[in-house]
Amino acid sequence: MYGKKVSSLLESINADVMDRIRLSSGKVVLEGEVMPSTEANDLDVLIVKLSSGYNIGIDPSKYKVEKIESAKRTTERPAAKFSRNRELPDVSLIYTGGTIGSMVDYKTGAVHSPTKPEDLLEAVPEIAEMANISVLPLMSMMSEDMAHDEWARIAIAVAKELNNGARGVIIAHGTDIMHYTSATLSFMLSGLNAPVVLTGSQRSSDRGSSDAFMNLTCSTSVAARSDIAEVGICMHHTSSDTACAFIRGTKARKMHTSRRDTFRPINDKPIALVERTGAIKYTGEYRKIERGEAAKLKLMTGYDRKVALIKVFPGSDPAVIDFYREKGYNGIILEGTGLGHTPITPTRKEDSWLPYVKDAIDNGMIVGMTSQCLYGRVNTNVYRNLRLLNSVGVVYCEDMTPETALVKLGWLLGNYGKDEARKMLNTNVAGEIKSRTEFDTFLV
Amino acid sequence: MYGKKVSSLLESINADVMDRIRLSSGKVVLEGEVMPSTEANDLDVLIVKLSSGYNIGIDPSKYKVEKIESAKRTTERPAAKFSRNRELPDVSLIYTGGTIGSMVDYKTGAVHSPTKPEDLLEAVPEIAEMANISVLPLMSMMSEDMAHDEWARIAIAVAKELNNGARGVIIAHGTDIMHYTSATLSFMLSGLNAPVVLTGSQRSSDRGSSDAFMNLTCSTSVAARSDIAEVGICMHHTSSDTACAFIRGTKARKMHTSRRDTFRPINDKPIALVERTGAIKYTGEYRKIERGEAAKLKLMTGYDRKVALIKVFPGSDPAVIDFYREKGYNGIILEGTGLGHTPITPTRKEDSWLPYVKDAIDNGMIVGMTSQCLYGRVNTNVYRNLRLLNSVGVVYCEDMTPETALVKLGWLLGNYGKDEARKMLNTNVAGEIKSRTEFDTFLV
Repeated sequence: MYGKKVSSLLESINADVMDRIRLSSGKVVLEGEVMPSTEANDLDVLIVKLSSGYNIGIDPSKYKVEKIESAKRTTERPAAKFSRNRELPDVSLIYTGGTIGSMVDYKTGAVHSPTKPEDLLEAVPEIAEMANISVLPLMSMMSEDMAHDEWARIAIAVAKELNNGARGVIIAHGTDIMHYTSATLSFMLSGLNAPVVLTGSQRSSDRGSSDAFMNLTCSTSVAARSDIAEVGICMHHTSSDTACAFIRGTKARKMHTSRRDTFRPINDKPIALVERTGAIKYTGEYRKIERGEAAKLKLMTGYDRKVALIKVFPGSDPAVIDFYREKGYNGIILEGTGLGHTPITPTRKEDSWLPYVKDAIDNGMIVGMTSQCLYGRVNTNVYRNLRLLNSVGVVYCEDMTPETALVKLGWLLGNYGKDEARKMLNTNVAGEIKSRTEFDTFLV
Repeated sequence: MYGKKVSSLLESINADVMDRIRLSSGKVVLEGEVMPSTEANDLDVLIVKLSSGYNIGIDPSKYKVEKIESAKRTTERPAAKFSRNRELPDVSLIYTGGTIGSMVDYKTGAVHSPTKPEDLLEAVPEIAEMANISVLPLMSMMSEDMAHDEWARIAIAVAKELNNGARGVIIAHGTDIMHYTSATLSFMLSGLNAPVVLTGSQRSSDRGSSDAFMNLTCSTSVAARSDIAEVGICMHHTSSDTACAFIRGTKARKMHTSRRDTFRPINDKPIALVERTGAIKYTGEYRKIERGEAAKLKLMTGYDRKVALIKVFPGSDPAVIDFYREKGYNGIILEGTGLGHTPITPTRKEDSWLPYVKDAIDNGMIVGMTSQCLYGRVNTNVYRNLRLLNSVGVVYCEDMTPETALVKLGWLLGNYGKDEARKMLNTNVAGEIKSRTEFDTFLV
């Protein structure tokens, strides 16, 4: 299924899927097994499994490629046959890339890609008992490369599936920026009346410790069976394989580089815990599906990419605001300290952020304030420095994460006028602001 | 104890400490009680307790000031007499400002400042049983205004106290950037052979829920009794008043805007838990005090302020690196996604960070990589994008927090040549890098 360039290259060294190859370029030497391509792989990218167990996508034209060992071939899997079960709901799985992109068939041990429904069903047979799954390969990207263009494409694809009768949608996605995507989709899919479930994996599916299978099972359960009408992330709740958490898309955050329970709700409880069998236990408040209301979905994919997130630190140079102003930026989210501070009266007077923030706002920029503490809520009422920032027009973003505030501002500026965007920034739109933070939502 | 300007103003409206006043300036109207000044308050700042319970410092010349109610006077506290107890160790308390700056005497109910040892001992009598405390007012700043100048002043003050025979040092400090300070002091106080304890409070001392008293008691215990030869933060371990945690200075982070247990160890365990009675229970590994080694302390207060922390986000403009380069910056810490990613092959090619990072490094800048996940460890070995960043010379900062990596880089560049600084950035100096992350250090 590779494109012409990669296919000819593999042919030229007599290498096939599962054969071991070496790629060298200067000091960089990579060794691993050739993986099958995904159908979504329309770039000239070769997928190789490194000995670490991780798969990487490589442009082989930049490397010297040699075959070093032939694979031990196993018997070919017989082609699977699955037919639509009219008793089950229809669920669409939109594939966008990431570590979940490679799947092992745990009956045959063969590695293959999940971009054909049959393959997916063979790898995780449990989900066929819950729903008729259609798999849509939309793109094949590592999530750190994604931005607003991809968010709009995903939102459009989700809307299409829902309008075509899907009961719910699963989005397979890289984990790096999954929470930025989940927040953006929460805003773009206005009036959503179905579950939209982002999932992925921290370990590729061909490792014993992979989280791909349970994450897919639990995500299917939420998409096929829950009455949740929100966008959320469904991945491991703890480090063990007992349950997944379904976390509100605007309140989720990747909090660990490698753990399977990396996604955590910030200032919120999970909406639901989903056992590995698929049983759903609701644990938080959520918007429920309203029957007969499917037509309410309104796609709002506008996004102003001229928004930036700036983390404030001791001695930080406030002139960075001017850098963005000169580039025509329309909005900035500050990640301040504590309750929402920047230096205001530092020893080096030129390091005060107040005049720069004031200038930016006077020139029409929207400046929002969040906290690098992540947990808790910014508050203008406590200290003088906060009042000063507030008095020049900084919008205090309540209990939003910096990441959610950033994409919300991009979305607001892409869909509304500036005055309305400013007003809406600290008004709840999609569960991103809770008027009261429950006590047991710290480090959960 | 106020300076001339503030004293005359208060006199002119016949207002004294504890009287209720109103300050107005345009739309801003503040009401509260006049607090006593700190001796450290050499600026013309009036301290007012708002009805929220928080104290703010205000330049009253910018406001119209009226007295609105006289205080109900209580009997004057008799001047306390404390003499040095030769059986107890000497501990110095360096006062730098912050919310802990106002203290209530919980026997008389009067509010006063802790800048005289007698006052402090009256407010928290327990600590007089543990140590002879000398209080040194060094500065009176909200911590969000602090930067490297203040860090060097504090380090020098600590060294002076230790060289003069103090067994340990407590630093009363605002909480906003306390973890940046604790990390910097960990580097600046090279060869430290005594406990150096930063503490503060999230609620001012005259609120029933104040954490100031227990934090001071526990901090005194660590400074006077522990065998820990490290810089750390000692504040509430949980939201209840049962124990404080003493957290390594390079591994601590403020994780909540308002909770009293806001400081958490990141990828580390607390070094010790300290019960409110002062009993110390060691819970992690630490460097122990070596007897007869007091002379090893070497002050290294150099700091290159031309270092910046940049948080990477989807669609972020990598040209911000050039902004810092053109300003003569010598180092940048990136707060990447996941295992340490930036966009490398995004749809909009101009958004790739790779050429900007490469240019910066080729031009002599040090670029370090941390993760915005905060927990976990960056890793160059897994994905292609990581290998590419590594191949152009990005230094992967292991399990360091972005904040610690930033101040470490500033300190390295201020004390070593560039080549050595680059090498040392991902080598452990002061507990900031653990070669292996223990499992139960996530969200603790």
